Order: sequence, then C-alpha cells, then structure tokens
Amino acid sequence: MRIDIITAVPDLLESPLNQSIVKRARDKKLVEIEVINLRDYTTNKRRRVDDYAFGFSAGMVLQIEPIDRAISALKAQRTYDEIIYTSPDGDIFTQKTANVLSLTENLIFLCGHYKGVDHRVREHLITRELSIGNFVLTGGELPAAMMVDAVVRLLPGAIGDEQSALSDSFQDNLLAPPVYTRPANYKGWAVPEILLSGHQAKIDEWNYEQALERTQILRPDLL
Amino acid sequence: MRIDIITAVPDLLESPLNQSIVKRARDKKLVEIEVINLRDYTTNKRRRVDDYAFGFSAGMVLQIEPIDRAISALKAQRTYDEIIYTSPDGDIFTQKTANVLSLTENLIFLCGHYKGVDHRVREHLITRELSIGNFVLTGGELPAAMMVDAVVRLLPGAIGDEQSALSDSFQDNLLAPPVYTRPANYKGWAVPEILLSGHQAKIDEWNYEQALERTQILRPDLL
Repeated sequence: MRIDIITAVPDLLESPLNQSIVKRARDKKLVEIEVINLRDYTTNKRRRVDDYAFGFSAGMVLQIEPIDRAISALKAQRTYDEIIYTSPDGDIFTQKTANVLSLTENLIFLCGHYKGVDHRVREHLITRELSIGNFVLTGGELPAAMMVDAVVRLLPGAIGDEQSALSDSFQDNLLAPPVYTRPANYKGWAVPEILLSGHQAKIDEWNYEQALERTQILRPDLL
Repeated sequence: MRIDIITAVPDLLESPLNQSIVKRARDKKLVEIEVINLRDYTTNKRRRVDDYAFGFSAGMVLQIEPIDRAISALKAQRTYDEIIYTSPDGDIFTQKTANVLSLTENLIFLCGHYKGVDHRVREHLITRELSIGNFVLTGGELPAAMMVDAVVRLLPGAIGDEQSALSDSFQDNLLAPPVYTRPANYKGWAVPEILLSGHQAKIDEWNYEQALERTQILRPDLL
C-alpha cells in the first residue's frame, strides 16, 4: 500500500508517522508513506501557497494551483483509489471507513490548513471528503495522521499479534471489555476474580458479557 | 491555561505540539503544555510501564502504578479541572466540548496505548473519558494532540485574526461557506461573481445562504 499526504505544514506530520505501529509498518515495507510539501509545487518565488479569501475579511486559503500541480504529479506516476480531503464537511470517518481504505492500493490525503482549500479543489480535484468529527482544527494534518494510523494498523503483519486488533473496540460493533494487568490488587482495588481463574471459556464469556454491557450503557447507538 | 499530557510514547507528540497555532500559543504564553513521560514514574529497573492483560491472550495494557504516581505528582502541584482519558468508550468530543474545556485552567490528558490502561485507572483516577470517534487507533496521543489543538486555538489571542475562528464551521452550528482565493479563474473554473463584487452586505448574505445550504445537504443533523 502507498499513501501520499499533501500538506503545507509537513513538519507537523514528522513524529506521528515515525513512531509506534506506523513506523513499524513502514520499516516492514507494509506501507510506503510520502509527505508531499505543497511549497515544492508553487510557481512563485516566495513559495507561497495561500492567499486571502475573496469576499472574506480574514483567514487564509490554500490556492488551487499548487494543489493541482502536486496531485497531477502524483497521478502521473500511479493510479489512486481515492484522493481524500480531510474536512469538517465530509463524511464522518469510522472503523468501517478504515476497514475499506485498508484494502486499497494507493491513497492521497490532502490536508487543509487555516481556512481550508479553494473550493474549486473540492469540486474538481478530489474524490472524497472525510471528517474526523464535529470540531475545528488548525489543519487537516492530525486527522490525516490519525486516519493513516487507523488504516495502517489493519494491514496484515502491522500488529505483532493478530488477536490484538481483532479484540479492539468496534471490530464486532462492541466496545472492548475492561482490561487489567498486574498487580492483581493495587491499594485494595482488585482485578475481577474470574480473570485470574484460568478458565479460558468462562473468561471469554465474561469478556463478551462485559463488552455487551458496556456498549449497552455507554454507546447504545452502536448496537 | 496549563495542559499536562501523560503518555508512554512522548516522542509521538513532538511535532503536533510544536507547530502552527499551538506553537504560537505556547510562545505567547497563552498556554503551558507539558508532556509527561510515564516511564519516569516506574519503580522497576527496566522502566517498563505495560504488562500482559489478565485473561487475554494478546495485547499489552498500561499499568495502574506509574499512572497513579504521575497523576499524584501533578495533583500535588495544582488543582486540575479535569483528568481526561482519551478512549473510544468516552463521550464524543465536539466543538462544544472544546469550547467548555477552553475555559478551564488546568487539564490532564492521559493517553492509552496498545490495548489501553488498566481498568482501575478509569474507575478511580480520572474524571472523564473523551472519544474522538468510532474507530481504533494505536494510542490516545493523536486524539489528545487534536483535542489540545481544538481547545488552544480558542484561547483569546491564539489566532491572529479573531474573525477567522468565528467564521469556522460549527461555531454557529453551520458548516463554513465555500472559500475561494486567487486566481479568480483557473483553467476555466471561475470564482462565484458575487465574491468579487465588493458588496460586503450581499457577500455576507451569500455566505450565510451557502453555509445554511451546505449544512442542510451535507450535515442536516447539525441543524
């Protein structure tokens, strides 16, 4: 799988893409991730990529020209399954979206920054808008990094033990059951006895019941 | 405002907290952000902070002891408005949550990683669980960074021009209107003429109508 992330603030993506499971997946060549600096695609001398919004008194907008040039350069090299713009207007990103995207071959994420991109980019140059939630951020970089994390950890081999991803929240439409580790008793707060019993069938049953109960109480909308 | 972020993977937070508007807000002393390395609060020699989950065959869980010690050390220094655990089980983070949190003085974000934290942490040591959405990530670090970004950009003075934050999506329960910048015509794709007219009252009206229409079509649930 290959993921290209186009951004005016490439430094913002430095640490999220070079740590933990995403780093391991890149090291194992499960995924190739390139961060594309939008400024490399400007034609003006000061490498400026934004300008004032027409009809607005404030806020900067990323211009269409460097974005068009950056996307065209990538598309000249390979076919992309999706060109995704991260935006609060888009469809809400869910585990199902991550599952579907993890089966694609080539993805572009275009990150807005400040007031976003020139609207013509959204009308003509992308295939899809995805939102991380109902709130405003400085840019689309962290949402893109998060979507990449959610997708990459699903690639076979990305997580050491396959079991770990399968027992995560949402994969069966249930929240995860509560987890506990050593010590079994901490300041009088004890781990449920069943988990120390060694009866795996009973433990599995308890975990399922807990997951169901937590989902019913905390997130009935998932059921 | 002060924000402490407790994590087992502090490097992951390096770039998101040192770029763009969050960096500027820190430079201007609008917010003090400390990243607390959980490993500094271990008592074992190998600085290990996780262990196997009781009753599970796979996946590592962050232990309660270092978390308890880290939170206690912070609470000994000041009073915290909220101790937030970022988790897919939590209440969904929205712009309203960001608005409320931006009025607090001291916040702790506790980031899970891998399978999360020992459940006793969630029962006894935190005040609130917040989720960024219905999907699974490697850790709570990016969600915490994103929540910090959403909160910090609301602090007075964080954004150069106050207008910019006010005209963002969600602040009036509407998506933002489309924005355009130079050139007015790109490859035959033209900017709506009204935006070039100079009639600010008409432009404001158009922007409001567009925002309303986009919200009705794309996100009727917001209305």
